[in-house]
Amino acid sequence: MSGVFGAYSTSGRTVLEEVYLGLYALQHRGQESAGISWVENGRIAAAKGLGLLHNAIDQQKLSGKSASSAIGHVRYVPTDPTQTQNILPIGANYARGPVAISHDGYITNLKELSKQLEQRGAIFHSSTDSEALLHLMAQKAHMQPLDALVDALRYLEGSCAAVVLLEDMLVAARDPWGFKPLVIGKADGTYYVASESCALDIVGAKLLRDVEPGEILVIDSKGPRSLRMAPDKHCNRCMHCSFEYVYTARPDSIIDGCSVYEARKKMGRLLAEKSPASDADIAAGMPDSGTIAAIGYAQRSEIPFEMAVVRNRYVGRTFIQPTQKVRELGVKIKLNPISDVFMDKKAVIIDDSIVRGTTAQRIISMIRNAGASEVHLRVASPPVLHPCKYGIDTRKEGTLAAVKMSIEELRKNIGADSLSYLSEEDLVEAIGLPEDQLCTACFTGKYLPENNS
Amino acid sequence: MSGVFGAYSTSGRTVLEEVYLGLYALQHRGQESAGISWVENGRIAAAKGLGLLHNAIDQQKLSGKSASSAIGHVRYVPTDPTQTQNILPIGANYARGPVAISHDGYITNLKELSKQLEQRGAIFHSSTDSEALLHLMAQKAHMQPLDALVDALRYLEGSCAAVVLLEDMLVAARDPWGFKPLVIGKADGTYYVASESCALDIVGAKLLRDVEPGEILVIDSKGPRSLRMAPDKHCNRCMHCSFEYVYTARPDSIIDGCSVYEARKKMGRLLAEKSPASDADIAAGMPDSGTIAAIGYAQRSEIPFEMAVVRNRYVGRTFIQPTQKVRELGVKIKLNPISDVFMDKKAVIIDDSIVRGTTAQRIISMIRNAGASEVHLRVASPPVLHPCKYGIDTRKEGTLAAVKMSIEELRKNIGADSLSYLSEEDLVEAIGLPEDQLCTACFTGKYLPENNS
Amino acid sequence: MSGVFGAYSTSGRTVLEEVYLGLYALQHRGQESAGISWVENGRIAAAKGLGLLHNAIDQQKLSGKSASSAIGHVRYVPTDPTQTQNILPIGANYARGPVAISHDGYITNLKELSKQLEQRGAIFHSSTDSEALLHLMAQKAHMQPLDALVDALRYLEGSCAAVVLLEDMLVAARDPWGFKPLVIGKADGTYYVASESCALDIVGAKLLRDVEPGEILVIDSKGPRSLRMAPDKHCNRCMHCSFEYVYTARPDSIIDGCSVYEARKKMGRLLAEKSPASDADIAAGMPDSGTIAAIGYAQRSEIPFEMAVVRNRYVGRTFIQPTQKVRELGVKIKLNPISDVFMDKKAVIIDDSIVRGTTAQRIISMIRNAGASEVHLRVASPPVLHPCKYGIDTRKEGTLAAVKMSIEELRKNIGADSLSYLSEEDLVEAIGLPEDQLCTACFTGKYLPENNS
Amino acid sequence: MSGVFGAYSTSGRTVLEEVYLGLYALQHRGQESAGISWVENGRIAAAKGLGLLHNAIDQQKLSGKSASSAIGHVRYVPTDPTQTQNILPIGANYARGPVAISHDGYITNLKELSKQLEQRGAIFHSSTDSEALLHLMAQKAHMQPLDALVDALRYLEGSCAAVVLLEDMLVAARDPWGFKPLVIGKADGTYYVASESCALDIVGAKLLRDVEPGEILVIDSKGPRSLRMAPDKHCNRCMHCSFEYVYTARPDSIIDGCSVYEARKKMGRLLAEKSPASDADIAAGMPDSGTIAAIGYAQRSEIPFEMAVVRNRYVGRTFIQPTQKVRELGVKIKLNPISDVFMDKKAVIIDDSIVRGTTAQRIISMIRNAGASEVHLRVASPPVLHPCKYGIDTRKEGTLAAVKMSIEELRKNIGADSLSYLSEEDLVEAIGLPEDQLCTACFTGKYLPENNS
Repeated sequence: MSGVFGAYSTSGRTVLEEVYLGLYALQHRGQESAGISWVENGRIAAAKGLGLLHNAIDQQKLSGKSASSAIGHVRYVPTDPTQTQNILPIGANYARGPVAISHDGYITNLKELSKQLEQRGAIFHSSTDSEALLHLMAQKAHMQPLDALVDALRYLEGSCAAVVLLEDMLVAARDPWGFKPLVIGKADGTYYVASESCALDIVGAKLLRDVEPGEILVIDSKGPRSLRMAPDKHCNRCMHCSFEYVYTARPDSIIDGCSVYEARKKMGRLLAEKSPASDADIAAGMPDSGTIAAIGYAQRSEIPFEMAVVRNRYVGRTFIQPTQKVRELGVKIKLNPISDVFMDKKAVIIDDSIVRGTTAQRIISMIRNAGASEVHLRVASPPVLHPCKYGIDTRKEGTLAAVKMSIEELRKNIGADSLSYLSEEDLVEAIGLPEDQLCTACFTGKYLPENNS
Repeated sequence: MSGVFGAYSTSGRTVLEEVYLGLYALQHRGQESAGISWVENGRIAAAKGLGLLHNAIDQQKLSGKSASSAIGHVRYVPTDPTQTQNILPIGANYARGPVAISHDGYITNLKELSKQLEQRGAIFHSSTDSEALLHLMAQKAHMQPLDALVDALRYLEGSCAAVVLLEDMLVAARDPWGFKPLVIGKADGTYYVASESCALDIVGAKLLRDVEPGEILVIDSKGPRSLRMAPDKHCNRCMHCSFEYVYTARPDSIIDGCSVYEARKKMGRLLAEKSPASDADIAAGMPDSGTIAAIGYAQRSEIPFEMAVVRNRYVGRTFIQPTQKVRELGVKIKLNPISDVFMDKKAVIIDDSIVRGTTAQRIISMIRNAGASEVHLRVASPPVLHPCKYGIDTRKEGTLAAVKMSIEELRKNIGADSLSYLSEEDLVEAIGLPEDQLCTACFTGKYLPENNS
Repeated sequence: MSGVFGAYSTSGRTVLEEVYLGLYALQHRGQESAGISWVENGRIAAAKGLGLLHNAIDQQKLSGKSASSAIGHVRYVPTDPTQTQNILPIGANYARGPVAISHDGYITNLKELSKQLEQRGAIFHSSTDSEALLHLMAQKAHMQPLDALVDALRYLEGSCAAVVLLEDMLVAARDPWGFKPLVIGKADGTYYVASESCALDIVGAKLLRDVEPGEILVIDSKGPRSLRMAPDKHCNRCMHCSFEYVYTARPDSIIDGCSVYEARKKMGRLLAEKSPASDADIAAGMPDSGTIAAIGYAQRSEIPFEMAVVRNRYVGRTFIQPTQKVRELGVKIKLNPISDVFMDKKAVIIDDSIVRGTTAQRIISMIRNAGASEVHLRVASPPVLHPCKYGIDTRKEGTLAAVKMSIEELRKNIGADSLSYLSEEDLVEAIGLPEDQLCTACFTGKYLPENNS
Repeated sequence: MSGVFGAYSTSGRTVLEEVYLGLYALQHRGQESAGISWVENGRIAAAKGLGLLHNAIDQQKLSGKSASSAIGHVRYVPTDPTQTQNILPIGANYARGPVAISHDGYITNLKELSKQLEQRGAIFHSSTDSEALLHLMAQKAHMQPLDALVDALRYLEGSCAAVVLLEDMLVAARDPWGFKPLVIGKADGTYYVASESCALDIVGAKLLRDVEPGEILVIDSKGPRSLRMAPDKHCNRCMHCSFEYVYTARPDSIIDGCSVYEARKKMGRLLAEKSPASDADIAAGMPDSGTIAAIGYAQRSEIPFEMAVVRNRYVGRTFIQPTQKVRELGVKIKLNPISDVFMDKKAVIIDDSIVRGTTAQRIISMIRNAGASEVHLRVASPPVLHPCKYGIDTRKEGTLAAVKMSIEELRKNIGADSLSYLSEEDLVEAIGLPEDQLCTACFTGKYLPENNS
């Protein structure tokens, strides 16, 4: 999972700080590393580092630089996040000049591609999808950079929302199924591309539209123009990731035309209709991802909404070392149910999804210790039954709670008085996109057919 | 403004990591520096640094150390936060052994004290209140450390919630008016003192009680015992800071017996009764401090509550350099109103307080741009009309919006369709403490009489 | 100019610290960056940094690692020494496994080679000679690494003393003319290759022999074996760099069978015979490079030798920022003539060479200020009249003092009472190698014929 | 052991860089830490750090500052050099303004003084002599700073060469016996004080004279004026440290009127007369401290002088971690005898002194391995038989080679063919000062009488 951002000023104004701020708005998509690349004297320059943006990049140094076009990247790395060579964007100066690449997605044929490239002399310095794209371009040194890029994109299978910086242009490309979100915005003479529209808001830009599935958007001094990926990559259906609406995206983003906030609230409403908790005295969300659905649930069911579980804003994955003491205290470090609110109350808790079930179990136990007489859990998405092949995390099928147990077993396991999920139909209805434009593979197992991937 | 924390294990178990975690729970009380002190081979040892806790202190190095008693501090420093010598706790090894001091509050006679101490040979290395306390002790080298500390506390005027580490004991002291909060908790054989009860929750400790105004709580291997400050410091009334309930404290804390969450929700309810916004379609809080009051307002007025303004969790005061671009974008970097929620709606926004009014103005403007047809502002505390003499920030009277303008002028200035404040009476009622036990000086100007201070 | 070092233990013992110490002995060959590479789990690992060895590499971290084969490099970089990507050894994991390269010398066809490689898809990350060698290997991915390396070396023109680390072997290669020194040594079951024999001494190894011009020495678990560069690269004469004996090498090294110390002393002796300074009261060397020749001069002429100019051991190029004040004080920061020694004396000063003449001028002036009544300068090498094409520094012809002026003009310019150089014949005689095995191009302009280079 | 430096410009010119350069010239007196202090806006400012000057202080940052008066310090710390609070100069802002202190020497009544000061309320932050002086001043807050300083100096016993910075003046003080060297110099309108005259040379200043024993030299805008320490501290004899001439000082320094270079050469000459080595083919010094004496020995005995043992200029105590491998290789890492010079030769080696004898043993063994047929050791000072009470190192009596064995036993122990020392009389003659003005306590045990110390 990643966040990508790019900016191109047609008036030559520097955009480096805006890329920095744009990445701030996308920080929820990746906290393990951050980077910004631009062109300086015909060569790629970069500021990169590990951890959260403010640790990774020295804003003050950046402010002293100037570039009218730049790209940035924030990255979530489930394994070995300390490999500095894997920090994106990846950049190089090859036979045809400078190029830098930021990529959100998962290239399913990466191993195969890398092997072929190495046989032709490529030396890989990282284990990123983006570097394969770089070598595909470098090995077409007889072509113009843009042509080489368009050609290179043909070889990629899987999901891809890429922002590419060339010497005199910015290119945004989205795979033919549109798995990963990618939007385009504008403010005065500057064009922006970003994983989510909230990153346009932070720099004061207006959302123009989503980059279309299969579109290659080229922005240069004449403004944007649109190319299409090769026809043999054409698909008859979209596969927009439904999990973006459930969990990944920020609630203030609009993705493929649908408001994430409204989708989440509707998930809560439909859940309240199908899985009421009539006796409950209070409704609360599992912070932060369950909060909006909880508001929808509370409104529909007329149960009072409370911010009953407080999240410590200053505790993040990259901050706390997993020492023995930290493991003992577990979720207590991050979340704190308010005793005065829960005492002697029947509570319905709305969470966005259940993956392994361990967090739910611990919080329900904490809520009971805080005095709740009943705890009913409502999940604002269907059971996660299948691994994601297109880039969401690394959860393996064997670790999924809903695979290992029945719903009743799971309820007992996590200690809830009742447990219900949103149905697949209601998920689709809540999002508001046609069913055949959504990827629900993690819920339904309906992956892209192999010959199409 | 600061957060203090201390731990003493009667069983000799190391408490360093718990102090670290306790400070995480108090991070909202100070983000400019953090420090932890303990005794190592009879001498004060410390881990300290600038910025947020995870930047200031290397948790991994701390985990390698061991100490059965330790204190910690997080600090908000309005001016010149880069002075490393001012990072607390302050520690020293004086004639009578090691001592370290963490202090929340504002010593009103600091200048006078410092001058006297210097005349007697003291060399000040910092400009902190705590160092004055240290020199007061050092100049009584003929006394036992505890006696010297008790004696030293007599000289302090103003507000003080201090945690002091001596070689074989931990001391917690609260000024005779109880301005600043300070609680005591326990888990197994370990005692904890903390600015707020939420810091007890994070380490799994149970809140025993508040440290009483004028109490000097001494914890050693035999457990806690209680001393009193000298009788000439006796006061006939408490002065618990009402602003803790309005803004400072975390909602999951209980201070002087009153739940901050319940107090805030009641502020919202009372505001809804006295200052309704009958036509409003939605009610939203100014994140994060207005949220709980907004829930109370929404419940009482039956206007739907929405999380309509999204706060960027990754943007903090210590992260962003105030460059030209950042100043231009202003509050947009931190807050984003959701257009889909506000579009063509009449909104009532609940904020905790208005100090200078500039943020309110900018957000109301953003909400209108997001499509709201009407924006009504409700403030869950009375107008701030007086500077705080006891440690809240450095706001000078001349910068206070409510001092410079009438309410109607301020309404126009910030661009709201209507503007109302909570009354002083309702504030007191919402908190739930007797009026004569609350300090409301910043609203009412009722400071401690000079001869008592 | 660089120093290279490699070690291979046939008994599997770790050699990392020895490579570190070997680089210490070669530090005089390069102070701008240092690096060590080894293989870890089948992949190249490295410790690298800018500046002197002890700043560049954390010895303590290195001591915690283990590798039975490793290579190292210290580098003198006349321009832009802060480019971290140019720190050698350069390493990569290509289709055929790990490879790391350390190289001393100057590839005269580097630009041409790089362009060809880029046309075939190579992406250059540095501007080093070594990376070209790396890509030459990578583009022969169908060959075994050793075969690819041998093949790649064919393409290099110019000077080259390279140490290459492969997964299971260490390779040392010297260009067919033997421009740059490279020796092989042994201690117990470990083989070492180094730029100079003094680096064998530091690790307690015995000098076995010089790597021969055109030899490719392969060391693996079976010990060393010798390959030859391709026959079309055969040369009918050697071109051992005579400047190594004059200035570059350490006096305790033996290069191509000749002792540097003895060569320098003989340069001084012959200089004393041909250019006596009969009246002189004292003889002194320009520290440190002129000292040994001065001892030879003093012994032959029976003029008392004095250490009359003290060099500040702690001042290095990488330590002092060239501020205005530093430029004003100039050579005074590094060198101090002792007044008590020079007062009212006629002094003969022996220097190793004169390049631009500015240092000589400043020191002669300082010596006069120290009280010397006469200052005679003797140079222990012929006038430097031509730029070096094979890797010594970057001095351009136009900056060479002996090109810009006659000897008499130069004498006046630097303010000496007399000035003499060693003749080319005496230089050759002092070194002791046959004239046709020495490169004296910087003195004589006798470069390698173009078609041979 | 330390080096101190101070500069005061009467014309208001900044002297910070000159203090930095002055410390470079004194680096041989201390390599463990360095610091510079000056006054900024009425308060002490400082740049300090561990290790060699260029690592300890960022020259570039210093160049950006300005101060017309400043002091500096380099420090040799035999034990625990990583205690950053002990880096000098020590500075403070006390009741009477800013003060910073640099001190070379050893206060023999430090413990006693510290205890008294603590009883009166002093809080010590370091374990330095200088801090005691600071507290002595602070506890006289009723006096002017200069008066308080003069008064404070009365309490010190032992050796002391101190440079003290006050708000508007620079003070240099030397104990009544003149143990430690301290000189004053001038260039244009700037006055300098330094441990050695070589530090005046580097900044282009002229040596005016030594600060006299018992003198307190005060430099302010009116130039220098001289005070005397209190009469009860008067002494009837000087105690200039003879070890400065033997080992400590740089050869290009003039101390108390005597040239260190000439003294060392004469030590060698007298040694050649009294302890000839008639058969020897070559004479060489133990680098670096034995070199000058070796030149004197060679000249007097007409044995050829050779630089036969090469010292690695880049290896220092602060650079190399004492790992197992490093201990094994021992002195080999630093020193390398040249085989071509020693082969089949009878060598006489001149060393400055023998303390523990271990280094001599190792080098003699290396010289034999290098081929020498005989190795005769001559020591240019008498046997070290007593610990120094006044600040040279921390060698304890039990570790001194000449205490543990007879000269013949020591000769066998270190493996020399013959071993001779310089006599006490010849040492005194070589230095050139009257015997009753020299401290030779480490050779003779003639310490200062207790009641005078």
